[in-house]
Amino acid sequence: MMHMHMTDIIIKKRNGEELTPGEITFFVEGYTSGDVPDYQAAAFLMACFFNELNDAETKALTEAMTHSGDVADLSAIHGIKGDKHSTGGVADTTTLVLAPLVAACGLKLAKMSGRGLGHTGGTLDKMESIPGVTTTLTMEDFIKQVNEIGVAVMGQTMTVCPADKKMYALRDVTGTVDSIPLIASSIMSKKLASGADVIVLDVKTGSGAFMKTLDEATRLAEVMVETGKRAGKRTVALVSDMNQPLGQAVGNGMEVMEAIEIVRGEREGDLKDVAMELASHLLVLGEIADSKKTAREMLDRAIKDGSGIKKMKELVQAQGGNPAAVDDFSLFEQPSEYGEYLAKSDGYIAGIATEMVGHTSVILGAGRAKKDDAIDFSVGIWVDKRLGDPVKKGEAVFKVYANDKNKLDEALAILDNAVTITDTPQGKPKLIYAVID
Amino acid sequence: MMHMHMTDIIIKKRNGEELTPGEITFFVEGYTSGDVPDYQAAAFLMACFFNELNDAETKALTEAMTHSGDVADLSAIHGIKGDKHSTGGVADTTTLVLAPLVAACGLKLAKMSGRGLGHTGGTLDKMESIPGVTTTLTMEDFIKQVNEIGVAVMGQTMTVCPADKKMYALRDVTGTVDSIPLIASSIMSKKLASGADVIVLDVKTGSGAFMKTLDEATRLAEVMVETGKRAGKRTVALVSDMNQPLGQAVGNGMEVMEAIEIVRGEREGDLKDVAMELASHLLVLGEIADSKKTAREMLDRAIKDGSGIKKMKELVQAQGGNPAAVDDFSLFEQPSEYGEYLAKSDGYIAGIATEMVGHTSVILGAGRAKKDDAIDFSVGIWVDKRLGDPVKKGEAVFKVYANDKNKLDEALAILDNAVTITDTPQGKPKLIYAVID
Repeated sequence: MMHMHMTDIIIKKRNGEELTPGEITFFVEGYTSGDVPDYQAAAFLMACFFNELNDAETKALTEAMTHSGDVADLSAIHGIKGDKHSTGGVADTTTLVLAPLVAACGLKLAKMSGRGLGHTGGTLDKMESIPGVTTTLTMEDFIKQVNEIGVAVMGQTMTVCPADKKMYALRDVTGTVDSIPLIASSIMSKKLASGADVIVLDVKTGSGAFMKTLDEATRLAEVMVETGKRAGKRTVALVSDMNQPLGQAVGNGMEVMEAIEIVRGEREGDLKDVAMELASHLLVLGEIADSKKTAREMLDRAIKDGSGIKKMKELVQAQGGNPAAVDDFSLFEQPSEYGEYLAKSDGYIAGIATEMVGHTSVILGAGRAKKDDAIDFSVGIWVDKRLGDPVKKGEAVFKVYANDKNKLDEALAILDNAVTITDTPQGKPKLIYAVID
Repeated sequence: MMHMHMTDIIIKKRNGEELTPGEITFFVEGYTSGDVPDYQAAAFLMACFFNELNDAETKALTEAMTHSGDVADLSAIHGIKGDKHSTGGVADTTTLVLAPLVAACGLKLAKMSGRGLGHTGGTLDKMESIPGVTTTLTMEDFIKQVNEIGVAVMGQTMTVCPADKKMYALRDVTGTVDSIPLIASSIMSKKLASGADVIVLDVKTGSGAFMKTLDEATRLAEVMVETGKRAGKRTVALVSDMNQPLGQAVGNGMEVMEAIEIVRGEREGDLKDVAMELASHLLVLGEIADSKKTAREMLDRAIKDGSGIKKMKELVQAQGGNPAAVDDFSLFEQPSEYGEYLAKSDGYIAGIATEMVGHTSVILGAGRAKKDDAIDFSVGIWVDKRLGDPVKKGEAVFKVYANDKNKLDEALAILDNAVTITDTPQGKPKLIYAVID
């Protein structure tokens, strides 16, 4: 270790040779401490873009990043702890559907989440749209809450995976984001640092996802599952569709209300189907159910008997929120402006520009253009039609909720380009393409 | 230009697309000014390593680097101005052989040179081993001298090609040195900045060269000639052998004396042959001779009639040196220690570890281990046997001149590994592999 030189490690990777775990750890520790400068890290990451890290190298990078900062010790939580992660999509509120349901079924869910990024929302922002809820918990409170009610959702602290934070910021400005092993390491290092025993991943693919093609998404899922397993975690990944918003609500409070309606048993659809699939895998990996079929029955029961919605209220209350809001949506912040985008012709929905819908919600105030922007919890877009749906001229395709007339008009103008209507009937896209385990 | 972003340029190159001259100039100007940080430059250069710059991109990079600093204006020199460059070898003293000869034949040689680097010597250091000679000239004095005596040798100033200096230092620590278009740009940007009209390049290949294989050397020669031509310069490149020291002397004063003996007509061999080939191309490109055959006859005459050695004395005198040293080698600095490495068996010379011989001369003090080390002009190694030569046990293979008994012993110990003697007769390597024009 003492005699390693970063330049030699760069050249070794550049030449396509396999790096040892020691060499990768040398890089991660050196980069975190500042001994390895940004310019060497940038050259190294570009070499990793061209000569991709293999599974053993990806595991070594992931674990070195995990151990670059605090690793949560969840041993004080009794039983198996589950975690879930999505690579990010639009109207992707699966966490808020499945969290109360799997907890109601008896699996401990210790969920560390992120904020919204670009056109995709974040679970923390959504949670905080519930009146009074905070996601800033101490580790002691987090552990206590999971032990008491079986579920807690908190933000990862700044001291988790500092290597990943520094490396991600560098990759963003050096053209080295789009490397599947680097993406896998970034995600999995944070999952490993969160301390859960079983991990269910949801890798999104399609026009609204970071992974545009099914091939890329499948490879990312495979690399992440392999990395999780090599680190001793039970890991499963779905590859699921993001060619249209998953749910119908795009915007924080609206998405929470849609999730609550599903947990109440009042709403069906793609969002519920993906959430139930993820939840089923969690219950099986967590040894609560002996098969996916049993798991699904348990989840259906938690909806029907009200134990799911009861757990949702416990979660809200435990994190400082008003549980009455789960029953009474008028307690959520309310938008002042409303408008509709109407179909210009009869036909069938052939395309929804999912990223554009996400970006439009950011313009309304539902997300952040800059890191420190405030979120407007009440605004958003209701996507009233789905791919393949028939539509009549003059019917609403998008319903827009805003707090500023100018932003409402801007949003409606952008959404004019966000839907394609054709004369010929369209099929519906597949919802779940693959399960990697 | 105003709306370019370095990250986009990195990604474009990373994806294998051709960059426009404007994009390359944006990078070079931004990197020189500091607007483009080291880490983006490092990622960009690694992308250029994998997706090599094509000829048009290489020309754009070269010209942008040329114009990042001062470009010599040699228009005050009458007639065609020649320049010559070697990629660096051991005992490669061709410049000091050809400079007085081509000047004696009437071609103006305005030569900007470098210092020794690693195991290879530099023309400036060799020149300064002649008592009194300086290579630190003002541009006015340089131009005046070329107009008056037809030849001058000076170091390039710090204000020439600052982009190349900064980029080379970065490449050295980011594993991005070994890219032929980047090497070609680095060399050619300095040649273009030196202002000459015709350029003859000597690309060395073999165990003692930076380009180890003939393929690499030939590609480098082709890219440099193409770049020179695209920039409007008449350019020719030789690809020549560096599997053994080119001359027999390795060390500054010793190399100058060997060169002087060639110009006097007292010495034949590989060094003379390569120097005469380079000089012939210079005379043809410079329109002094109408064919290489005529050029060679003119050069032979300059040796025979003494006009070459007279020009050497003029050069020494013009640059502050004592011209009597050209006739009387006792005026050079003299070493105090001497030793010989003797053949351990009868046989034939099958290998000379050329880089090792170069590094050993650096240990003796003939080169710099660190940038600011002083040079000992008097020390060096005389390579008494050449590849293919028969040798008897006990004959001297290397004669070592030093000023420190410990260094002498160290050198002899290293040289024990620098020669391979076999029982079977060996052929001599080819001297000039290719002429690229």
